Amino acid sequence: MSDDMLTTNPFEDGDHLREECGVFGIFGHSDAAALVTLGLHALQHRGQEAAGIVTFDGKQFHSERHMGLVGDNFTKQAVMNRLQGDRGIGHTRYSTTGASALRNVQPLYADFAGGGFAMAHNGNLTNALTLQKDLQRRGSIFQSTSDSETILHLIAMSSQKHLVDKLIDALTQLEGAYALVGLSEKKLIGARDPLGVRPLVLGDLHGAYVLASETCALDIIGARFVRDIEPGEMVIISNEGLESLHPFEKRNHPRFCIFEYVYFARPDSSVNSVNVYGVRKRIGEELAREAPADADLVVPVPDSGTPAAIGFAQAANLPFELGIIRNHYVGRTFIAPTDSIRHMGVKLKHNANRAMLDGKRVVLVDDSIVRGTTSLKIVQMVREAGAREVHMRIASPPTTNSCFYGVDTPEKTKLLASRMSIEEMANYIKVDSLAFLSIDGLYRAVGQYGRDNEHPQFCDACFTGDYPTSLTDHDQPTEIMKATRLAEAG
Amino acid sequence: MSDDMLTTNPFEDGDHLREECGVFGIFGHSDAAALVTLGLHALQHRGQEAAGIVTFDGKQFHSERHMGLVGDNFTKQAVMNRLQGDRGIGHTRYSTTGASALRNVQPLYADFAGGGFAMAHNGNLTNALTLQKDLQRRGSIFQSTSDSETILHLIAMSSQKHLVDKLIDALTQLEGAYALVGLSEKKLIGARDPLGVRPLVLGDLHGAYVLASETCALDIIGARFVRDIEPGEMVIISNEGLESLHPFEKRNHPRFCIFEYVYFARPDSSVNSVNVYGVRKRIGEELAREAPADADLVVPVPDSGTPAAIGFAQAANLPFELGIIRNHYVGRTFIAPTDSIRHMGVKLKHNANRAMLDGKRVVLVDDSIVRGTTSLKIVQMVREAGAREVHMRIASPPTTNSCFYGVDTPEKTKLLASRMSIEEMANYIKVDSLAFLSIDGLYRAVGQYGRDNEHPQFCDACFTGDYPTSLTDHDQPTEIMKATRLAEAG
Amino acid sequence: MSDDMLTTNPFEDGDHLREECGVFGIFGHSDAAALVTLGLHALQHRGQEAAGIVTFDGKQFHSERHMGLVGDNFTKQAVMNRLQGDRGIGHTRYSTTGASALRNVQPLYADFAGGGFAMAHNGNLTNALTLQKDLQRRGSIFQSTSDSETILHLIAMSSQKHLVDKLIDALTQLEGAYALVGLSEKKLIGARDPLGVRPLVLGDLHGAYVLASETCALDIIGARFVRDIEPGEMVIISNEGLESLHPFEKRNHPRFCIFEYVYFARPDSSVNSVNVYGVRKRIGEELAREAPADADLVVPVPDSGTPAAIGFAQAANLPFELGIIRNHYVGRTFIAPTDSIRHMGVKLKHNANRAMLDGKRVVLVDDSIVRGTTSLKIVQMVREAGAREVHMRIASPPTTNSCFYGVDTPEKTKLLASRMSIEEMANYIKVDSLAFLSIDGLYRAVGQYGRDNEHPQFCDACFTGDYPTSLTDHDQPTEIMKATRLAEAG
Amino acid sequence: MSDDMLTTNPFEDGDHLREECGVFGIFGHSDAAALVTLGLHALQHRGQEAAGIVTFDGKQFHSERHMGLVGDNFTKQAVMNRLQGDRGIGHTRYSTTGASALRNVQPLYADFAGGGFAMAHNGNLTNALTLQKDLQRRGSIFQSTSDSETILHLIAMSSQKHLVDKLIDALTQLEGAYALVGLSEKKLIGARDPLGVRPLVLGDLHGAYVLASETCALDIIGARFVRDIEPGEMVIISNEGLESLHPFEKRNHPRFCIFEYVYFARPDSSVNSVNVYGVRKRIGEELAREAPADADLVVPVPDSGTPAAIGFAQAANLPFELGIIRNHYVGRTFIAPTDSIRHMGVKLKHNANRAMLDGKRVVLVDDSIVRGTTSLKIVQMVREAGAREVHMRIASPPTTNSCFYGVDTPEKTKLLASRMSIEEMANYIKVDSLAFLSIDGLYRAVGQYGRDNEHPQFCDACFTGDYPTSLTDHDQPTEIMKATRLAEAG
Repeated sequence: MSDDMLTTNPFEDGDHLREECGVFGIFGHSDAAALVTLGLHALQHRGQEAAGIVTFDGKQFHSERHMGLVGDNFTKQAVMNRLQGDRGIGHTRYSTTGASALRNVQPLYADFAGGGFAMAHNGNLTNALTLQKDLQRRGSIFQSTSDSETILHLIAMSSQKHLVDKLIDALTQLEGAYALVGLSEKKLIGARDPLGVRPLVLGDLHGAYVLASETCALDIIGARFVRDIEPGEMVIISNEGLESLHPFEKRNHPRFCIFEYVYFARPDSSVNSVNVYGVRKRIGEELAREAPADADLVVPVPDSGTPAAIGFAQAANLPFELGIIRNHYVGRTFIAPTDSIRHMGVKLKHNANRAMLDGKRVVLVDDSIVRGTTSLKIVQMVREAGAREVHMRIASPPTTNSCFYGVDTPEKTKLLASRMSIEEMANYIKVDSLAFLSIDGLYRAVGQYGRDNEHPQFCDACFTGDYPTSLTDHDQPTEIMKATRLAEAG
Repeated sequence: MSDDMLTTNPFEDGDHLREECGVFGIFGHSDAAALVTLGLHALQHRGQEAAGIVTFDGKQFHSERHMGLVGDNFTKQAVMNRLQGDRGIGHTRYSTTGASALRNVQPLYADFAGGGFAMAHNGNLTNALTLQKDLQRRGSIFQSTSDSETILHLIAMSSQKHLVDKLIDALTQLEGAYALVGLSEKKLIGARDPLGVRPLVLGDLHGAYVLASETCALDIIGARFVRDIEPGEMVIISNEGLESLHPFEKRNHPRFCIFEYVYFARPDSSVNSVNVYGVRKRIGEELAREAPADADLVVPVPDSGTPAAIGFAQAANLPFELGIIRNHYVGRTFIAPTDSIRHMGVKLKHNANRAMLDGKRVVLVDDSIVRGTTSLKIVQMVREAGAREVHMRIASPPTTNSCFYGVDTPEKTKLLASRMSIEEMANYIKVDSLAFLSIDGLYRAVGQYGRDNEHPQFCDACFTGDYPTSLTDHDQPTEIMKATRLAEAG
Repeated sequence: MSDDMLTTNPFEDGDHLREECGVFGIFGHSDAAALVTLGLHALQHRGQEAAGIVTFDGKQFHSERHMGLVGDNFTKQAVMNRLQGDRGIGHTRYSTTGASALRNVQPLYADFAGGGFAMAHNGNLTNALTLQKDLQRRGSIFQSTSDSETILHLIAMSSQKHLVDKLIDALTQLEGAYALVGLSEKKLIGARDPLGVRPLVLGDLHGAYVLASETCALDIIGARFVRDIEPGEMVIISNEGLESLHPFEKRNHPRFCIFEYVYFARPDSSVNSVNVYGVRKRIGEELAREAPADADLVVPVPDSGTPAAIGFAQAANLPFELGIIRNHYVGRTFIAPTDSIRHMGVKLKHNANRAMLDGKRVVLVDDSIVRGTTSLKIVQMVREAGAREVHMRIASPPTTNSCFYGVDTPEKTKLLASRMSIEEMANYIKVDSLAFLSIDGLYRAVGQYGRDNEHPQFCDACFTGDYPTSLTDHDQPTEIMKATRLAEAG
Repeated sequence: MSDDMLTTNPFEDGDHLREECGVFGIFGHSDAAALVTLGLHALQHRGQEAAGIVTFDGKQFHSERHMGLVGDNFTKQAVMNRLQGDRGIGHTRYSTTGASALRNVQPLYADFAGGGFAMAHNGNLTNALTLQKDLQRRGSIFQSTSDSETILHLIAMSSQKHLVDKLIDALTQLEGAYALVGLSEKKLIGARDPLGVRPLVLGDLHGAYVLASETCALDIIGARFVRDIEPGEMVIISNEGLESLHPFEKRNHPRFCIFEYVYFARPDSSVNSVNVYGVRKRIGEELAREAPADADLVVPVPDSGTPAAIGFAQAANLPFELGIIRNHYVGRTFIAPTDSIRHMGVKLKHNANRAMLDGKRVVLVDDSIVRGTTSLKIVQMVREAGAREVHMRIASPPTTNSCFYGVDTPEKTKLLASRMSIEEMANYIKVDSLAFLSIDGLYRAVGQYGRDNEHPQFCDACFTGDYPTSLTDHDQPTEIMKATRLAEAG
């Protein structure tokens, strides 16, 4: 039966939440474009659909935006030669929209009355459509569906005089999560939303300022980590140095996205000075304590489950083994938009290492369960390879809610944990036991005593439904954006 | 010596003025996209760089814009399948700007608060930059350098309520020449500037309304010619039929571009109910009368000199012969932007038919002399083929002034006739005699008694310097548009 | 009714015989590749599907072969830079085979035991399949379906010692028509079949030897015409100069293809020292004498009917008028392989110039009638434009037989003249009168007293069925080449 | 200083030996092309430059060959639709040759007198050039530089009557290593060289026969592993079932490539019924015993060093930690041919996980040292991340000799271990201690008691210089293949 199922529908969509973007900026280095390219390459895990770079050479802005991986598009000499200048910003993007989305690829650029300005951001506004409607009524013409363009139009329409003030004017109208980098003729600007949901760090490369979504993008170019940009902070970098502004009134506590630790960020990055790999190992240790299993070995679902599996194995004193082998060449196919390819996910990516699994009681460690489709296949694959028992351990609490802050999540109704109890899920994915990390266990792994339910220290809405901002667009009647749309290919 | 010159620099730029655009629209036909494609193909001589089509299918607008010829881009089934709907507009474009100009390709589209609108135009505004500067100050963000986008922003910023009123609001701010087609969800709109400098005709295809730059685009789809759209007229075509508006106060007389008869329009088109081929033959007859030559045969510089040469030969009772053969495959290379290719023009296009020329006294008929580079080569080629005498006859008056109404002309200082007397030109291009048609002769050929110098019946600024509108941008100090610019490839 | 027909099937295939190739070679010029490119451009009318160039730089051969026009592929600096060397050959090709035919594009190249050799040819072998079968039995592996590869394998398998002897060995096994150019490390070779069916001329460019299908390819680079390569002659060009061999026993008289004069060759070329344009004009004069018409004007079907129409008009003392306008941008679409595009021929190419035709009695002059589909549409178009009478005059005898010598002809059964009498054809295409040139009239136009039926001076098989060689493959049972075939895209 | 070095030359070539190919075949399944695609995807690690598939549909062979990854080229519906048939073979390839190598991409196809035949192989012939020279003298024309084409020409030239006998005739002339798959109209053929240097396994998918380089390619399609094809065995699969031939006289013992266990094969594959991951773990255990280290943790150089590091850590009772993080997106850039990109290897691929390394004594485990460039950078990177001591342990003996059997190795003089002692290497890469596995330890890890020096059980020439076949081409004077060559871009 399972065999039939494999024959008729052998593959499934990649069953993970997906970060929608990474940003990078540098000011004052003669190899600006090459360094932005390397930074974006280090941030490739935050978006594989498209990438773009804008530089400024003292006279002219240069823009290159391409569908596909950084390493496939920004390695040609001709491309790099066009990106002249000692300052630049870049963006790497994952997207759910169609093939023709080149005009949506960031950084976006606008000619303002006062000069050119390019911008890229990571995150998602929760009132973007409401703002767009209003801007259209005031005479703005939109070329894309990007939140970045909304911000640009807010800047253009601002009655303030100077660019920084116009940008502040714009930011104070935004709701949601964002970490943005902007480039004018004289300034590199970085800004983070008041809650600091999305990450942004500051680095230094022999005197050149660097902004990046994660510290791994500093490491690749050998830049020194200086500090995290603070929630609600705006930094203005120019030939005069760095100026820090705090344009927002202080509200609540910071609410950094806790899922960055669970899955999005690269393990070698540090966020808020906490190493991600260390958090993931501690998650595995917590999990071993909360939900031990009588088993022969610990097997990660690679690669995202690996650090937690190492932590689990060490804490449980069980051997850690590569019982599932990942084929890394598959990554690329995710860009292709056809159904048939989207359905080739799991089996193309993973293979059971039968010699390790046959006859064994296996603890299987994965980072999360989204739709459950991957888990179902993985467990079946492990069983077909001869595993006697399968104990699934999940390195996060049940994912029960959609994210509206720049992460591609299925609708709530498609999240397995929103439809089933843990027992039902265990039956569904056919494991002998299933356990998720507790929310307090997760907070402990990131170095807290547990969740402060009065003032939660992180945004954990995907686990708790506790959204730290209002969701204006989502709460509107659906016809709000029933605009006539243009479909353009090519 | 001339031989050496050929060896080291054998080729030259295409030495003609170039029309910058053709437009086409249809409303109420199930094959709208295919018919727009055919119409644009018939208008290909008005612009070979790029082409675009926008259709509306009752719910959504569809846009396809491509660099290159209509016949190379709009012949694939996939492209045509995407252009659903029973109404559409199209545009074919010649341009001087760089390779990356896809965002400049028309029709342009905008989502207004009240719905989508696509627009394309032929012509050129003489106050576009001034308007752009003002719009940027008011918060508009420009994505292209197209006059069409300026008009779209004027519409978006209009305080009027309804689209037609917004458009009128926009048009009344424009200076210059334009023939435009627009497509909203409910309406196909056509409009011509108050002087009617650029052409636009109305046709009927079994009840479907058609708008086109020239009648040859009606012929290709078998549509019936109804009438010319009048100078300053705006037609609104909808399911309720055609409504004609005259939003401008009447000013002066119409000033249709007389050069359309000389060179731009296709010979099988009729403009103002006058057949272009007929005009060109009469030009040749006038020329034979004004400047006869003692010669053995009449040879056209193909293809633009052919009708006038036939007229000259018939009036002079001399044999008409194909003494120069044109290689039509060259047309395509004009798109390529490199210098080396631009320099391969004349010789790649023409070859002397030695057997016809050797030992003969030749009347050579061409439509105009711009820089003189082509004439120089052609005369030399004809002489090298053995012609005993070369009498050049030009089917228009000397081109002494630049056009600012949608025609790509060199700066005045590069126009041969602005720098030299006719004698000097004759020496320069090395002919035994040279004559241009008189301005009155040209007016006679188009059916007038001559030029009415008080109220000239046509725009003939390229011959007379008498510009029918103000030239606001041109008269501004040059730093007005010193905006920081974005260079984007791709 | 005719209107309905236009609506449902408005367009038709290009209704002409098609030459399959042009060849060019040069030896001893530092700009070899650029000059080959120009030569091929001048020969573009002999094949628009693909083009290729091979050069030799003293150490290495360089090859560039591309689908599409010469001017689209050999104008980029990178391409030209790769084609190093002072000698080269080129080929331009029309083909009936599928999109994947890059491996069929000539010149073909082979590494022989004695060194490299590249070859390209115009023409068609009538025993190629028979030779291929035999070569496969002896161990040859074919990569293409090109006759050129057959010749290369015959060379490779020859027991002769030296390349020239091997080539002679190969040529003496061939049946059919060919004009070939070959390039070894030391030699440029040209050869023509014993009957000289296909053309090949010798030129001189400041001491560099040039070979080309037509003299127009000499003109474009300013090379001096030296002489025609003789039927059955092989010329060996090396640093030692030119050596002429006559490897074939003399058989019969030369039989140059008379259709080259009628349609294939460019009017500015001279063949056997006879100017093509002159022949075509004389054809028109003969036609006016053989089949006069009581009419108001003479209109060519452009461009191929134009010289004959000029000749007819002069002989008949009737005005010559451009009553049909050709849109030259259509040429390009012939490359596209889809049916729907193939069906867009006539109307896309031609438009009636109503103002010239309305109410007139018209003599319509075309070069030939193949399937009759084009004539049908053209006549209908001319009548719809108001012509009162249409008298069709054809500048060649009825085309009743297929060509097997390198011209793409429909099967005999699809040739209108093989199925109908002249009266039936006149009814079919709906003209008031129809006349073809007589075969003797055609011979007179090329300067003979008429056809010598004992020893015809030309190959006129398409008109007479008198094939000058045996047709070995054609006479075989059809299963001879039922080989398993490989379909490869890309 | 090290910092300066990073600035001026930050990146290095991928410093591994590279397998040159993977092969796959299937007979008797309606989804043949899709299954070949999946099989090739599972074998992608054996070659990323290009891939090809040939199928046979009962009447016609279909071929698709593309540069790039399987997942990028064989996922489009159009491509798959063209590959009709119930049998097919495929090939994935790594290559050192230039960009234009499409004609070198396998499978190659030939039309023999007796029918079509396609072939692909993994391995390398050591007398290919000698055979090619001889075949050229006999009249063969080569289109590629592939060994496969040499085999095809040997088949074509064979005087045997039947395909299988011709193939045997060809194989008996070969020297070297190969595992090949062939497809005729009726048969799928698999063959392995007499020593069985390169792997080939037989599988069964619901009755359809499968051939593949590794068992992981059976797993991906759910096929059952049947057995290894034996050294010197040829299997003929047809509608009549499988026939096994042993055409070679028995010589010596089998000599399977031991490096497949060390690095080439995927860890989840089993070779000769021995699981690769298990071997690698045992290698780590042997290494921990042979060369223990006083350290805090064991860190793999990912991914190739990971299984040995796990084995080392378990045997040494030290924690296994991900102290280096690999960025998997880099894989793709290896295809790009420019120097600048080739130089972006190490740092683009790896980043130190500082939080794990700072202040620690680290055992670093890698699979091999080739040029040493990667090790140098990795060690430096680990030290810069704060490691107090670095003890490098290599999971194989020193690589001292080039491979001539289908593995891309640098010349002997570029192999670090051929130039330096272990002490010198330790100094060069700047480690506190360096140890390689002993050759006997390696043999123990694959399940032997040690190396039988009389009759070595494996090909270990890269470690010992003991080549199991003669090296005919390599021993020839170098001018043997000084043929004139053709450079073709495409």
